[in-house]
Amino acid sequence: MSDSAYQPPKVWTWDSESGGKFANINRPISGATHEKELPKGKHPFQLYSLATPNGVKVTIMLEELLANGHSGAEYDAYMINIMEGEQFSSGFVGVNPNSKIPALLDTTVDGGAPIFESGAMLLYLADKFEDFIPSEPAQRAKCLSWLFWQMGSGPFLGGGFGHFYAYAPEKYEYPINRFAMEVKRQLDILDKHLAENEYMCGVQYTIADMAIWPWYGVLVQGGLYEAAEFLDVASYTHVLRWANQIADRPAVKRGKMVNRGWGEPEEQLHERHDASDFELRTQDKIGEPAQET
Amino acid sequence: MSDSAYQPPKVWTWDSESGGKFANINRPISGATHEKELPKGKHPFQLYSLATPNGVKVTIMLEELLANGHSGAEYDAYMINIMEGEQFSSGFVGVNPNSKIPALLDTTVDGGAPIFESGAMLLYLADKFEDFIPSEPAQRAKCLSWLFWQMGSGPFLGGGFGHFYAYAPEKYEYPINRFAMEVKRQLDILDKHLAENEYMCGVQYTIADMAIWPWYGVLVQGGLYEAAEFLDVASYTHVLRWANQIADRPAVKRGKMVNRGWGEPEEQLHERHDASDFELRTQDKIGEPAQET
Repeated sequence: MSDSAYQPPKVWTWDSESGGKFANINRPISGATHEKELPKGKHPFQLYSLATPNGVKVTIMLEELLANGHSGAEYDAYMINIMEGEQFSSGFVGVNPNSKIPALLDTTVDGGAPIFESGAMLLYLADKFEDFIPSEPAQRAKCLSWLFWQMGSGPFLGGGFGHFYAYAPEKYEYPINRFAMEVKRQLDILDKHLAENEYMCGVQYTIADMAIWPWYGVLVQGGLYEAAEFLDVASYTHVLRWANQIADRPAVKRGKMVNRGWGEPEEQLHERHDASDFELRTQDKIGEPAQET
Repeated sequence: MSDSAYQPPKVWTWDSESGGKFANINRPISGATHEKELPKGKHPFQLYSLATPNGVKVTIMLEELLANGHSGAEYDAYMINIMEGEQFSSGFVGVNPNSKIPALLDTTVDGGAPIFESGAMLLYLADKFEDFIPSEPAQRAKCLSWLFWQMGSGPFLGGGFGHFYAYAPEKYEYPINRFAMEVKRQLDILDKHLAENEYMCGVQYTIADMAIWPWYGVLVQGGLYEAAEFLDVASYTHVLRWANQIADRPAVKRGKMVNRGWGEPEEQLHERHDASDFELRTQDKIGEPAQET
């Protein structure tokens, strides 16, 4: 890199031109930009989301719970078009002050318990329905470890590698190298682990798999950033075995469709209110968002 | 930036010269580099860590638990010198395949349950001792949301802003702008929240505070990256009020010292095996590590 002339100012100031693609939805301040209530349906859970990797984690979990007979996990899912700034409505900020999808309400608790962060939702739902998380302490510790591993590692894939490889206004060599190395290290960890374990926590499919698959599983399947060749994802054979195994689950196929506004019509279900909604097939498209969150 | 000539290769390859400061401990592969067992003490918990922000989260929690009378939280803490690659020993990798501090063993479970990721440890300990986490479902959901918020947001502060502002081989304008904006957005979220809440989850001091304080609390106190002026941290007055309040807690003061190998002698306690160890004051220094983890 050859911009060694740059020296940061004493005090950073906002240049709204500097954010690259999607700069218009990245800001140095938080809070609502406009007044608008969120829609509400009749089911116990109200989900406001988009089918980016973090969004898909939760729709997969809800579909898995329903598939396992937990009718209390019925949900209404509304699409939040982050390209249009819908995450900055007063209603959305009221559920998630961080203005990131997904945002969830459990209407069965105190008239509506807001939950934000996809990892928190997975754990909350797993504990509430006592499913997809081991109950023995040592196994639960392992499951929590991998769940939190994804939360702490994912930003290096999404906000780091994905941003600089796919979305930044220029290809910057140093950041691409930095984050590519880290993502390959992460893939190698998963590959060694999945060489000896059917799922992340052993024989049981858990919320750790649901957290990791939408990022690293989809990545090795070639579905993120068109980076399959660059990262040589085919060399992570055990991750690919696991990724394909999870992708074959009917609940995963449904979860991927919910709140998706791009791709083929049969891949999309903008709003989900009932199991029968998956039969719908014709949808208007929205633009594909950055898969950073 | 003026390196628009750069085009990524078709397949990324490792140039071990390209990692910047601490390049020698960043690798694209995982696993042990050498055979070495971890030391073990007599207490229920064995901690292998370093007093970086993620390490401090857990020593604060253990000290808070002990201060609240939970004698089952007694622990031995061993310093892992990440500058020397001690996180790549076979023993450490056996506890945490991610080779990041902190790593924890609960020796009371199945002969030793390994736990990795600081957020997983906080939650595991809070649930085990039923302390520092609310029990009512809506309050617990809020606490989990903020705990996971830190896990997902922290990498933008540490691996993003901190790296590019303080540790990268050059000052790269675009990444610094990108991550400074995001960190300021995060600080603004906290500031608005703490304007109306004594602690992150309301009136109760919880693991959400313990997760967020070592990063954002220390940041606004001027203790990270010498970035106080650049980020205008003084403008986040509510975060500063909260940060000072937490910093005054005796358990926090002790927790900050454990596994610390830099700074003033009275700030350091390389190994901790007993409450009386905090009276020790003379220690050899190690180099200060990158506060990225």
